[in-house]
Amino acid sequence: MSKWLLPESLADILPAEARRIEELRRDLLDLYRTYGFELVAPPLVEYLDSLLSGSGADLNLRTCKLVDQLSGRTLGVRADMTPQVSRIDAHLLNREGVTRLCYCGSVLHARPTGLLSDRELLQIGAEIYGHAGFEADIEIIELALESVKRAGVREARLDLNHPAVLRAIVDADPALAVASDEIHRLLDTKDVPGLDALHGQLTGVRADSIESLRVLASLYGGTEVIAKARLSLPALPAIQAALNDLETLIRALPDYQFSVDLADMGSGYGYHTGVVFSIYAHGWHDALVRGGRYDGVGSAFGRSRPATGFSLDLRKLSSGLPPAARARAIRAPWGTDAALVNALRKLRLAGEIVVQMLPGQAQRMDEFSVDRELVLDDGTWKVRAISNPSAD
Amino acid sequence: MSKWLLPESLADILPAEARRIEELRRDLLDLYRTYGFELVAPPLVEYLDSLLSGSGADLNLRTCKLVDQLSGRTLGVRADMTPQVSRIDAHLLNREGVTRLCYCGSVLHARPTGLLSDRELLQIGAEIYGHAGFEADIEIIELALESVKRAGVREARLDLNHPAVLRAIVDADPALAVASDEIHRLLDTKDVPGLDALHGQLTGVRADSIESLRVLASLYGGTEVIAKARLSLPALPAIQAALNDLETLIRALPDYQFSVDLADMGSGYGYHTGVVFSIYAHGWHDALVRGGRYDGVGSAFGRSRPATGFSLDLRKLSSGLPPAARARAIRAPWGTDAALVNALRKLRLAGEIVVQMLPGQAQRMDEFSVDRELVLDDGTWKVRAISNPSAD
Repeated sequence: MSKWLLPESLADILPAEARRIEELRRDLLDLYRTYGFELVAPPLVEYLDSLLSGSGADLNLRTCKLVDQLSGRTLGVRADMTPQVSRIDAHLLNREGVTRLCYCGSVLHARPTGLLSDRELLQIGAEIYGHAGFEADIEIIELALESVKRAGVREARLDLNHPAVLRAIVDADPALAVASDEIHRLLDTKDVPGLDALHGQLTGVRADSIESLRVLASLYGGTEVIAKARLSLPALPAIQAALNDLETLIRALPDYQFSVDLADMGSGYGYHTGVVFSIYAHGWHDALVRGGRYDGVGSAFGRSRPATGFSLDLRKLSSGLPPAARARAIRAPWGTDAALVNALRKLRLAGEIVVQMLPGQAQRMDEFSVDRELVLDDGTWKVRAISNPSAD
Repeated sequence: MSKWLLPESLADILPAEARRIEELRRDLLDLYRTYGFELVAPPLVEYLDSLLSGSGADLNLRTCKLVDQLSGRTLGVRADMTPQVSRIDAHLLNREGVTRLCYCGSVLHARPTGLLSDRELLQIGAEIYGHAGFEADIEIIELALESVKRAGVREARLDLNHPAVLRAIVDADPALAVASDEIHRLLDTKDVPGLDALHGQLTGVRADSIESLRVLASLYGGTEVIAKARLSLPALPAIQAALNDLETLIRALPDYQFSVDLADMGSGYGYHTGVVFSIYAHGWHDALVRGGRYDGVGSAFGRSRPATGFSLDLRKLSSGLPPAARARAIRAPWGTDAALVNALRKLRLAGEIVVQMLPGQAQRMDEFSVDRELVLDDGTWKVRAISNPSAD
């Protein structure tokens, strides 16, 4: 029996769902193409140090490791394709100007990120390298919103944040640095009693640092949060600059309804440096899309370039959509005579799904619904409706 | 510098090539769909014993292993998707009749199979379960040939073989069994002196067994090989049955030019039980497509079903084709005014590639060739040709 079982949080994708994911993949890659994003495909595994360059400890924990039989070095199965695409921009393409890249591939997580998460994702994303201006961020945000819209997601909500706000608070008090991961966790769940408790736990921590974290945990809501943050957070230059960045973006996209959540810590793998965003929608328990600015990740590969982008998991996207419709198919008898072969070829070239019934066999299908049949009528092969299609 | 390097036999796929592979993927999956093959997507990793079920030692050596952090058990990164798809047929779908399944996904080899081989393949394939007749084999062979034809491969050659011929010879002399892997290697390279040397190396081996292997090494050529084999190989029932199977297929497809190579051992991972085939073409150093009958692989999952199918590596297929053409694109200025945004949207919805130039930036691209630009002319946004497109 055990050979039937799959490891926890890994799944087979069955017919109708697999085809829907394939169609989402095509729609989105074609969307990115119409914006001039070029497709790249980095390898499934590469040297671990290359795979983790510029990213945080979180990505390391999520990456499955194996030994390279050719070199003896440690390889990682990619848990995120963004650092790989940065490497391609920095090293392989080595262009001076703007480079727009998109990608779609399987990634693997050593452990699921949440109770309901899978360990295998089909990550699709788009990245702009070589442009530090907010214009690139706008294009990325618009493309991310267009992606979920194309997929049929309704009532998507876009949350903005800027990791430099928390970073400035932590940098201002050396006592906070050791508890950085814990602070992330507490802020993410908006656990104010937990933040208060840090006061007793961290040696030499200042009372105003804890107060700043408490304030941060309350800074979520509409775009009015930016003004509130200016008044209630310490007047550090890095915080002011981050709030300015957020304001510039919000003003540049007056048609969108933004939310702001300065305590949202889930937006990536620690490599973000500027405005970050998440798209949430009804039907998905956490963010559908994550993205933002991550300037300088390529510096590990010898070239520091501005960068902004987003990615999403097509399997997760598909899982929250209504069930995929079955495609209509034609049933045909088995045979090799020229007229039948010719009729089959013509129908298939026209995009029709024609299933030849093998001798002595019935057929049940999940992806297709047979509603017509190919029959020999007066010496000619013709397609006619089946009176009782549900019998298939 | 080392962070730039990829492990040996692993590669990034860059823009124009990546897009071509994506288009081959779509063309072939759509082709299989018109024949009624349903798409499935098994996981990238699963328990090793499940991944290797029904296959030979060769697949075990090719499979990268890692430890599952959730269960502590050994996982394998799939090196071949066929056993996974058999598992889906046997267990998950659990249908009585004919099931046609297709798939496309990355697979990883621990070591390259040949000097020029990559360790990462993009495997695409189609399988028919639940039908033991030659009609299913015919459909699979036709679909395999149509696949390479659709991709633009010319002068494809189809080689047939049947693993039961060699198996019968080995089974008839117990002294040969211990050298089974070595015999495969010697036959594959048609190394007759090596086969002769087995006489001295294997204790108790019969002279007529060695002679049968020598004969086998010479049994390649046109379909006349079948008749030659009947005369020159031992008259074992298993050999006669295998030659009958080959003859039935050849007769059923009178329009094709078949080659026969009874010593071709490279056709899979040891799970084949019936007629096997390989497609070779000018421009590829080894077989482009491998396929054949592998009845009973699903028995490891509790249900023995007849099965026949084929697969190919889309990356390898693409690498031997002429360079991919660049798509035509339109250059547009950056801006957010409604008329421009509207013009961009309309062009992109019509499938045009429109690249907005971000302020202060030039852009170089490999996948697209900019030959037109969007300009404001008399208050209206219009597309016009660029006089010197090569400047982009």
